[in-house]
Amino acid sequence: MLRFDSDYTEGCHPRVLAALTESNMEQTPGYGEDPHCARARELIRAACAAPEAEVHFLVGGTQTNALVIAAALRPWEGVISAESGHINCHETGAVESGGHKVMTLPHENGKLSAAAVRAAVENARNDPNAEHIVQPGMLYISQPTEFGTLYSKAELEALSAICRAADIPLFLDGARLGYALAAAPSLTFPDYARLCDAFYIGGTKVGCLFGEAVVLCNAALKPHFRNLMKQRGAMLAKGRLLGIQFETMFEDGLYLACGQNAVDAARRVRAALLERGLPLAFDSPTNQLFVNLTRSQMEKLERGFALGHWDAGSGENMTLRICTSWATTPEQTDALIAAIREL
Amino acid sequence: MLRFDSDYTEGCHPRVLAALTESNMEQTPGYGEDPHCARARELIRAACAAPEAEVHFLVGGTQTNALVIAAALRPWEGVISAESGHINCHETGAVESGGHKVMTLPHENGKLSAAAVRAAVENARNDPNAEHIVQPGMLYISQPTEFGTLYSKAELEALSAICRAADIPLFLDGARLGYALAAAPSLTFPDYARLCDAFYIGGTKVGCLFGEAVVLCNAALKPHFRNLMKQRGAMLAKGRLLGIQFETMFEDGLYLACGQNAVDAARRVRAALLERGLPLAFDSPTNQLFVNLTRSQMEKLERGFALGHWDAGSGENMTLRICTSWATTPEQTDALIAAIREL
Amino acid sequence: MLRFDSDYTEGCHPRVLAALTESNMEQTPGYGEDPHCARARELIRAACAAPEAEVHFLVGGTQTNALVIAAALRPWEGVISAESGHINCHETGAVESGGHKVMTLPHENGKLSAAAVRAAVENARNDPNAEHIVQPGMLYISQPTEFGTLYSKAELEALSAICRAADIPLFLDGARLGYALAAAPSLTFPDYARLCDAFYIGGTKVGCLFGEAVVLCNAALKPHFRNLMKQRGAMLAKGRLLGIQFETMFEDGLYLACGQNAVDAARRVRAALLERGLPLAFDSPTNQLFVNLTRSQMEKLERGFALGHWDAGSGENMTLRICTSWATTPEQTDALIAAIREL
Amino acid sequence: MLRFDSDYTEGCHPRVLAALTESNMEQTPGYGEDPHCARARELIRAACAAPEAEVHFLVGGTQTNALVIAAALRPWEGVISAESGHINCHETGAVESGGHKVMTLPHENGKLSAAAVRAAVENARNDPNAEHIVQPGMLYISQPTEFGTLYSKAELEALSAICRAADIPLFLDGARLGYALAAAPSLTFPDYARLCDAFYIGGTKVGCLFGEAVVLCNAALKPHFRNLMKQRGAMLAKGRLLGIQFETMFEDGLYLACGQNAVDAARRVRAALLERGLPLAFDSPTNQLFVNLTRSQMEKLERGFALGHWDAGSGENMTLRICTSWATTPEQTDALIAAIREL
Repeated sequence: MLRFDSDYTEGCHPRVLAALTESNMEQTPGYGEDPHCARARELIRAACAAPEAEVHFLVGGTQTNALVIAAALRPWEGVISAESGHINCHETGAVESGGHKVMTLPHENGKLSAAAVRAAVENARNDPNAEHIVQPGMLYISQPTEFGTLYSKAELEALSAICRAADIPLFLDGARLGYALAAAPSLTFPDYARLCDAFYIGGTKVGCLFGEAVVLCNAALKPHFRNLMKQRGAMLAKGRLLGIQFETMFEDGLYLACGQNAVDAARRVRAALLERGLPLAFDSPTNQLFVNLTRSQMEKLERGFALGHWDAGSGENMTLRICTSWATTPEQTDALIAAIREL
Repeated sequence: MLRFDSDYTEGCHPRVLAALTESNMEQTPGYGEDPHCARARELIRAACAAPEAEVHFLVGGTQTNALVIAAALRPWEGVISAESGHINCHETGAVESGGHKVMTLPHENGKLSAAAVRAAVENARNDPNAEHIVQPGMLYISQPTEFGTLYSKAELEALSAICRAADIPLFLDGARLGYALAAAPSLTFPDYARLCDAFYIGGTKVGCLFGEAVVLCNAALKPHFRNLMKQRGAMLAKGRLLGIQFETMFEDGLYLACGQNAVDAARRVRAALLERGLPLAFDSPTNQLFVNLTRSQMEKLERGFALGHWDAGSGENMTLRICTSWATTPEQTDALIAAIREL
Repeated sequence: MLRFDSDYTEGCHPRVLAALTESNMEQTPGYGEDPHCARARELIRAACAAPEAEVHFLVGGTQTNALVIAAALRPWEGVISAESGHINCHETGAVESGGHKVMTLPHENGKLSAAAVRAAVENARNDPNAEHIVQPGMLYISQPTEFGTLYSKAELEALSAICRAADIPLFLDGARLGYALAAAPSLTFPDYARLCDAFYIGGTKVGCLFGEAVVLCNAALKPHFRNLMKQRGAMLAKGRLLGIQFETMFEDGLYLACGQNAVDAARRVRAALLERGLPLAFDSPTNQLFVNLTRSQMEKLERGFALGHWDAGSGENMTLRICTSWATTPEQTDALIAAIREL
Repeated sequence: MLRFDSDYTEGCHPRVLAALTESNMEQTPGYGEDPHCARARELIRAACAAPEAEVHFLVGGTQTNALVIAAALRPWEGVISAESGHINCHETGAVESGGHKVMTLPHENGKLSAAAVRAAVENARNDPNAEHIVQPGMLYISQPTEFGTLYSKAELEALSAICRAADIPLFLDGARLGYALAAAPSLTFPDYARLCDAFYIGGTKVGCLFGEAVVLCNAALKPHFRNLMKQRGAMLAKGRLLGIQFETMFEDGLYLACGQNAVDAARRVRAALLERGLPLAFDSPTNQLFVNLTRSQMEKLERGFALGHWDAGSGENMTLRICTSWATTPEQTDALIAAIREL
């Protein structure tokens, strides 16, 4: 059984493991105040052309989202998100648990339009009962989205411009940012740093054992972020474990290579699906593909492959999610393609 | 200028004021542990035919909603509400501030269908990622709804049955319950007590100076409710002020009479609107009417009357809300009707 | 049975009731946006010589404390309080419920020393593990304290200076401020407004039916305070009820007169206690007296008077609290004094 | 420079690293639903002789404490802790951030007496104002304590008996439980499982890269614990990383061996300190030693060794903390002892 159901089925890239092994018996201070974290921060700031940015290392995505949002919002504020946003759907109410409403907007394949965001902000502020209404205090998007889709540079610039005009920070969830960078190289790290107030570079799903690197670009989000991390149980005692991983990822381009591997594999699988005439539920340029299968096709394919169940659909048709990753080998991709051809 | 824009524009029914005046220099213990509160509780339990119910007196609706919901939910649970629900739209995120998600469902004129509620519960529980999804822990409805509409007895029974089958409490927001009782007398206090796990009898909008009486029918909601009240700043030092008001309201039917006065006035206004050919945005049997006017009609009417702006509509048409109340006099209604006829 | 166990055993001053009665059928907008609230705010600002202050009307003390503290603190901050502070002891964890630690310091008869506050702030900030420690974000004191004692002008100035040097706001809980003003007239409303960042003028215990007037002097505390009020269930629908009461209290000195009545009565009772040779547990210049009685003295006195049980003491001795109030009549005081003489 | 300042200065035990390396390219499901986690749970249940216990794997101690406490408490409840407790002092208010008060009691070298706990519970429950007082809902202790001290079996039994009599769960923070097990082998895993309602087996400080294993013995704490984990950002995507580590620790006694290594080293250092006539601030049988040094002794020792600064003391004297760990080698211990002898 080969797993194509998610992009966190293996441990980590062998080079990351090697770095952890090599440094294992080094003695360092805790809580991220070690030389590996310091160097990893410098490498990320350099990659982002953002020398003033603060970089923090966290363990996972839900934790990261909740923290950045908590750092940004005052109690009466909420965060705008697509209805399909991870914070709205799949974090067991983490944002609300921190006291804030997720203010949802309709989406198109996971993406929000700039016009819809502007209207939402204006409506909340101009409502005659504005004091009775949660006020937007942040915009949350993800890149790629839950649907594997991408904001173009123009779209991201439009969202950024609206957020700055409205004076609310833009936060980009980059749990799979490596796959976005590979699929749409015209949007680079410096672009994300320039257009976002905060974003994170996902490690868990892109070759690290675990870990996310938050980049805080907006000065207003920086004060006491580490206090918040500690309070919410997000300051790793051996913070160096995160520093070592991101140091490895950023010292010579491994992060981008991990992303490229997954996108290349996904492109091959996508071509095979189309060639076989299997309809995509919606098109995705990144490492997640969404294909409509009949129930019997699904059962046949799942004999050899674990796949994600995206939508039960009605009756005979199902939408399945196929994930490639930094770890997908050509042989695994070949096997999947062969099975697709036989459907 | 006559105000028909809300049902809390005056102080309180003269008999309530008289009772407050008469008792003013009595000395009593604080925090609701006085004879007036005791008697008011007894009167409400008797009216509800619910001798086991706990009755608590609170100051306002947002406070009441937040408290009952906090008493019911565990941290990972949310409360189902219509998208139009007061807790979702007009309480500045009070429920989320307490750590819980408002799980919204589409509505029809403010009402939820039993089928939609059942599906929402089942989907959340049966999702393969159920641990990543907020689980429904309560159903919140209001009677009348934000649209002035009413659940019929059959509809309320269906919702109640679903909640009991799913083992989640049903909480009914009765901020305007007096107007529901007058408009739909087939649903009585004992019905509400029988079908709901908790509900509240709104005083603020139905003749009291202020105050809401929460009726906790489900034993699971009772323990330490007063501790929660104190913690959330909702335990009035001179609790007797609430006891005196509800005592007056329930000792000989004043609460129902207050409701009837508003509904009678609203019926006269509704008839005048229809007679004049002015379209209702949707029909309401209670004390709130929603009428579509042109901008020039609106401006003309608002020269003499304060009205609620429900929806800016597009271009020339507006939906206005007309509220009658326990305080509306026949002369005030006559004046409004005369103005409607001249539109 | 006469009650001297608290200062909220009656309703309100007759003039307050008359004002509520007179205005009862006026029609006004809700939520504190009516002419009575506007005038009451102006009167309070004038009394405080603080034309820039924001004044908000709230229902009760726990609610007020929780709100002002929530408006001041970021998530990782706590509020410094005496161990005996009301927020620490008698609000069922309201501050913690809002996410913040109450950082307690030892006290002397309810009072904090400036040196202790300074040391607490410095220790928290200079700790090598400062990120792991709650950082002080506000100082909370009460005037009078829980022990009926008062900060002198010099003491309040010292606390204020330390808070400003440390850049943390000073919040003064004035639930019984009227009694402080009567007992120590050298500290005036303008002094409180000048030295505090926020304070509240207690109405519930000083002649109002209910209500507290928050005075926000520090501009940083003002933004969106009303949103927070609404969110926490603290925005009264008929906000005018509070405006009418404070308007009456401040239009010609009634608030100060209410305070004076209680302090005058307490002085008479205190003299009687000392004359009778009954030891004070600690001396209080305000409307609360704390006297040590033997169990048999207590039982004798409690046949005719309800008193507060402050401390069970050990064995035969009890500390009882005697409260006078705005409502205490000379005849009631005479009766208590007569009983004291007969102990 | 050798580090004896904490027990998390290295990575992990080589066997743990080997297990992570060996399993690195295995494909497994996420979120702790993999065979390694399943086996690790079984091994821990077996070690604890607690077949009904639920075992969950978390990343760090603050996170674990906050979660278990959140699972146990209702909103109006707090958790009893020693004033010196980690949750009170060094978690940036994590418990309060979740809405709950830490109810502190005085301690003796980090330990609480059963009598003090019983009195605290009784006082809170029997207070005439019990509704205004946070009610104890859990007892939190740590073993070893912050002072390196240990509860004896009799002491732990007494605390357990009081908690059961009072119907509040007993939660034991075992961040360094391995060192307690080595220093006081008469208290075994089955004892902890029998006497506690919940406890955790610390991995971060006892040989794992990171990770804590929570053992929930009391059925009331189990429902939906994983939902809470996910909500609070504590459900690791690659949960297997924790399973693999604890599997390794528990399959043949490695966890106990790690503890023993540190305790053996600490005993040698302790003997050297006493032999040299250096006074212990208080005695500790576990891997943390607290020694009083003069400033010049400290400076001399710190030329070669990183040590913990426990207490600045007054003037010339300092209390330093010396930590050994699973990673301390005989050579490192020899070096430290040699330096101590030369002080």
